Amino acid sequence: MQRVGIIGGTGYTGIELLRLLLGHPQLTISAIAARGAVGERVDRRLPQLRGVCDLSFISPDSSELYDCDLVFFATPNATAMHHAGEFLARGVKVIDLAADFRFSDPELWSRWYGEPHAVPELLQEAVYGLPEINRDPIRRARLVANPGCYPTSVQLGFLPLLEAGIVRLDSLIADTKSGVSGAGRSPSLGNLLAETSENVQAYKVDGHRHQPEICQVLTAIAGQAVTVSFVPHLMPMIRGIHATLYAELCEAADLQRLYEQRYAGEPFVDVMPAGSHPQTRSVRGSNVCRIAVHQPHPQRVVILSVIDNLVKGAAGAAVQNCNIMLGLPEESGLVHIALIP
Amino acid sequence: MQRVGIIGGTGYTGIELLRLLLGHPQLTISAIAARGAVGERVDRRLPQLRGVCDLSFISPDSSELYDCDLVFFATPNATAMHHAGEFLARGVKVIDLAADFRFSDPELWSRWYGEPHAVPELLQEAVYGLPEINRDPIRRARLVANPGCYPTSVQLGFLPLLEAGIVRLDSLIADTKSGVSGAGRSPSLGNLLAETSENVQAYKVDGHRHQPEICQVLTAIAGQAVTVSFVPHLMPMIRGIHATLYAELCEAADLQRLYEQRYAGEPFVDVMPAGSHPQTRSVRGSNVCRIAVHQPHPQRVVILSVIDNLVKGAAGAAVQNCNIMLGLPEESGLVHIALIP
Amino acid sequence: MQRVGIIGGTGYTGIELLRLLLGHPQLTISAIAARGAVGERVDRRLPQLRGVCDLSFISPDSSELYDCDLVFFATPNATAMHHAGEFLARGVKVIDLAADFRFSDPELWSRWYGEPHAVPELLQEAVYGLPEINRDPIRRARLVANPGCYPTSVQLGFLPLLEAGIVRLDSLIADTKSGVSGAGRSPSLGNLLAETSENVQAYKVDGHRHQPEICQVLTAIAGQAVTVSFVPHLMPMIRGIHATLYAELCEAADLQRLYEQRYAGEPFVDVMPAGSHPQTRSVRGSNVCRIAVHQPHPQRVVILSVIDNLVKGAAGAAVQNCNIMLGLPEESGLVHIALIP
Amino acid sequence: MQRVGIIGGTGYTGIELLRLLLGHPQLTISAIAARGAVGERVDRRLPQLRGVCDLSFISPDSSELYDCDLVFFATPNATAMHHAGEFLARGVKVIDLAADFRFSDPELWSRWYGEPHAVPELLQEAVYGLPEINRDPIRRARLVANPGCYPTSVQLGFLPLLEAGIVRLDSLIADTKSGVSGAGRSPSLGNLLAETSENVQAYKVDGHRHQPEICQVLTAIAGQAVTVSFVPHLMPMIRGIHATLYAELCEAADLQRLYEQRYAGEPFVDVMPAGSHPQTRSVRGSNVCRIAVHQPHPQRVVILSVIDNLVKGAAGAAVQNCNIMLGLPEESGLVHIALIP
Repeated sequence: MQRVGIIGGTGYTGIELLRLLLGHPQLTISAIAARGAVGERVDRRLPQLRGVCDLSFISPDSSELYDCDLVFFATPNATAMHHAGEFLARGVKVIDLAADFRFSDPELWSRWYGEPHAVPELLQEAVYGLPEINRDPIRRARLVANPGCYPTSVQLGFLPLLEAGIVRLDSLIADTKSGVSGAGRSPSLGNLLAETSENVQAYKVDGHRHQPEICQVLTAIAGQAVTVSFVPHLMPMIRGIHATLYAELCEAADLQRLYEQRYAGEPFVDVMPAGSHPQTRSVRGSNVCRIAVHQPHPQRVVILSVIDNLVKGAAGAAVQNCNIMLGLPEESGLVHIALIP
Repeated sequence: MQRVGIIGGTGYTGIELLRLLLGHPQLTISAIAARGAVGERVDRRLPQLRGVCDLSFISPDSSELYDCDLVFFATPNATAMHHAGEFLARGVKVIDLAADFRFSDPELWSRWYGEPHAVPELLQEAVYGLPEINRDPIRRARLVANPGCYPTSVQLGFLPLLEAGIVRLDSLIADTKSGVSGAGRSPSLGNLLAETSENVQAYKVDGHRHQPEICQVLTAIAGQAVTVSFVPHLMPMIRGIHATLYAELCEAADLQRLYEQRYAGEPFVDVMPAGSHPQTRSVRGSNVCRIAVHQPHPQRVVILSVIDNLVKGAAGAAVQNCNIMLGLPEESGLVHIALIP
Repeated sequence: MQRVGIIGGTGYTGIELLRLLLGHPQLTISAIAARGAVGERVDRRLPQLRGVCDLSFISPDSSELYDCDLVFFATPNATAMHHAGEFLARGVKVIDLAADFRFSDPELWSRWYGEPHAVPELLQEAVYGLPEINRDPIRRARLVANPGCYPTSVQLGFLPLLEAGIVRLDSLIADTKSGVSGAGRSPSLGNLLAETSENVQAYKVDGHRHQPEICQVLTAIAGQAVTVSFVPHLMPMIRGIHATLYAELCEAADLQRLYEQRYAGEPFVDVMPAGSHPQTRSVRGSNVCRIAVHQPHPQRVVILSVIDNLVKGAAGAAVQNCNIMLGLPEESGLVHIALIP
Repeated sequence: MQRVGIIGGTGYTGIELLRLLLGHPQLTISAIAARGAVGERVDRRLPQLRGVCDLSFISPDSSELYDCDLVFFATPNATAMHHAGEFLARGVKVIDLAADFRFSDPELWSRWYGEPHAVPELLQEAVYGLPEINRDPIRRARLVANPGCYPTSVQLGFLPLLEAGIVRLDSLIADTKSGVSGAGRSPSLGNLLAETSENVQAYKVDGHRHQPEICQVLTAIAGQAVTVSFVPHLMPMIRGIHATLYAELCEAADLQRLYEQRYAGEPFVDVMPAGSHPQTRSVRGSNVCRIAVHQPHPQRVVILSVIDNLVKGAAGAAVQNCNIMLGLPEESGLVHIALIP
């Protein structure tokens, strides 16, 4: 059993990491840290873990964390960057589930996250943790930036089109719909049930932090500048992202075959049969991204891409990256079947 | 008090008509018909009406309906077309809330609704009941086709752009999100709470009946063929439509001002301040369409348009049309404030 | 038009007061105060009011409020008690929607609300605003304590049994289920959609502030000490309370007739036919309490009582009390039909 | 690997059995039958199983089912009783998840299920599958009647009180709240999202089939006739049952200790610390029943008991029974942690 630690265990991504790692056959959680809960038993705060978890929260400053083979930062943005270097120096691998290491350009990061980056030098070393494009670099990495939830659904959806070079690069639109758990567990008016249930709305149409993250990756794939019109919407549900992706084709292609071939070997990307409409609940609690390809008019392609924002969009992807980094089977601990109904 | 009748009072649009008409200061419901409930008191089947409605359901074949000034058909598609002629012949005006009279071309209707149209000659007479473009024809009409719910939200959203002629006509995309009441009250697997709650999915990406309805109207506005990529999605909520509309600008314009001017005199279209994100709940139970205009990039316009699918998307629009047809103030009986939270 | 003011217009009861009063034919809102929003237009914060409300928030300390005939305090507990006296002194009637004046015993109040009562002398004057038992005192009152939401549903449900003296007084159980809007609009972990959706739980089984309020009123009705086992539960929905009430009969009676007779003249209490199961949605947005009476075994009575916690359980009851206090028809402005679906 | 079959794989209990059995380390699903889907791939109808299930549905009449060690009937009531005998005759053990074998008295069964029982002789042999009271009989059984969902939550909640003989037997009340998946997957008006979301209601207050099932078991435990006032309610959510149980104590006892001791060795009953309020979501997707004990007044005990109606209330309990019947570790395949949020 290799040993992992979690820093920030009381938010939704931390809670989901606990669920996944407690059932992982080759990893043991040797320490879990949460500044606001030091000394408290984990299963007192999270009663769903009664009977399966004997741990208590420790301080994020505790040296016990250095005994891990790998630590997950499930902390707010601009936290991991202050601590990652120390872990790496002691030989502990790091996966950050927040945004600290997602951009290679520190100025771009600074513009969107509102402060200077603390360790610009580590930005160069960090690997963007999307195994479907970066599996080998992840295998060799000490520091992995786990992708954002929206970017995962959008990038996996557009990837085959951009690699094939068959769409107008200025025509890309990502209309995305997310459950409210994507906004995190900190109480705010906008997350209350009485404010978000029985309601749909777009937000940040004029600029969302995930837009430059999406564009950075798609630009690298396309080999030229890609701008995506990214419009996120809040859905009255807990979990799930549905990305509806639009592009104009500039040359003919068998799109269904293109997608099936591109993802043939991918354990966690499922290209559905032609004509399908994936449901977000079909991946609830599982690490799968399901994709369907539509071409309603000859020039128009519509891609439907669904993930569980807390699994393939966060904690599941982190475990997948961890498996790769530690030399374990990539699917280890990630065999959950979606909970339906 | 003028007298109106409802045919088909047990579906969601019929129930909503009852709510609106029972509170209308200048209209009285003189008859309500429902084939499956003849003789039953309305408030026995719809207990929310206890104390405010003494009516009992009559047969749709009852001659009492001919004593009305106007009848609403809140029946399934392909019903009203078999009866409208008889009402018109007896001097009773007709509003059909279903799709029977929405297309001017009987062959187009037949292709999408799966049977020959029973009265193609009436298709020419029928007026498409979107007051924002057809107020005067509605005023003179005997027969009005109430628009579909999706089309209302999409047409009102695109209208100023098409009238101004400033967008590429092959770039229009309507990504629409609807609550499940839009699918009606007939039980089916796809409408169960356990199937639709905590879930988002697209449906009919390769062809939905509202797509040709949208295109017919937009084509008339633009004066040339308009094709919209229309992708409807099912949301885990009861009421509300959120249309997210995309277009590429082909010339510069002050979009906020364009929309404010176009809708300045409209009682039921609210252009929100620049930068707004309308919530579907802000129109829950009310007859308003709220619109926000965004231009995230110079060439890209994103319009957000929300309605209550059962009010401005169905029963409210029908009452608005009825007011116009009967010479009443257009806002009469339509003063409801959205129910929030 | 008589003039009313609202103090605390940004919580759920304040928002609901706005919805009701803006549609009231004989009242005009002459001032609305909210400490955190002074100077802001009401419809900027509450976009559902665009087009129907031109007011801006003023300070709760503004003297404009003294020009009202009556002010509503829609403020947190322990607020109105500091200001009510000043309004009364200036001839302005007061209705407090919070708990400040619900108990006649200042020590009881202090025990449950955690601080000394600021104006114990006003507790004697204040009238408990349940018109179904206190209509005449309310008519003469300067100061009315609007009942709690749970107490309204429970008291109206038990009232006929206690007046008739036919139940064991130590057998009363109130198992109540409430939507989350009852917890107010202040963000807290326990009100988030991701915490409360798809979940049911009891809370405060060992003591909830509404328990002594219920017992005080039922004791007065019974003429001897009544203790109710009160167990509140949180439901995954926005609005509505369902109270399921249990008692053991100590003498036989025609219960259906008892309830129908007791509430025959009440405009806002609807005793449903025998065998009914009232739905909370049947009163959504309306000021009605619907009650059904069951007797599954000879000794056992089960009463089902539903209200909208924000209407008959708060703002609607306040308007009803206001109508009575100002000499208006009791149903004025309270004719809303429930929004279904 | 032992071999199991599922008859009726397209309802909610069948779907949940698939989820649990596909992840079971010691059982393999060798056949799955559904009359309406013969020949169809399971993962075509249930896309969440893509990649983890290669089976196709066979006919319930297919002889392949006889090769199983045990078959689960996840069929409607009054189905298994016509087939169970044949399986037993061929040496295949049977668990019925419906109600066919839950009553020992065929006349009682007939009264509640509306037809004569087909095999009254098997009623004597069948074991009621609540391991917490019947573990040894289940171990020896060929035919097990899986308990109803409500009865599981109510019986486990009352069990220690009745065994200890410390409550008035005519004082028992079970106020139960269930998600709508408990009503099954057959479309009906009462299960639509637009009818059940944002709504709470009681149903069948005057008689529900689970009431006699509860009383039969509690009577056996108490050794004398027990009648429970059973009031079920429908909650606006998919999964979960919350039973709130009331009784009057007739002698003093340390209730917390009583419950902890009674369930000390039970792998799937969790007695929470004193003062707790279990959430239904804390068992979502898991086979646990969580119980909290409250005594708000000296004579009054209130038990809170939560389960996932599709797991401990159906498919999970069936797997637990199967494990016992086949000599496997009781917890095998039942280690799921609740999905939160």
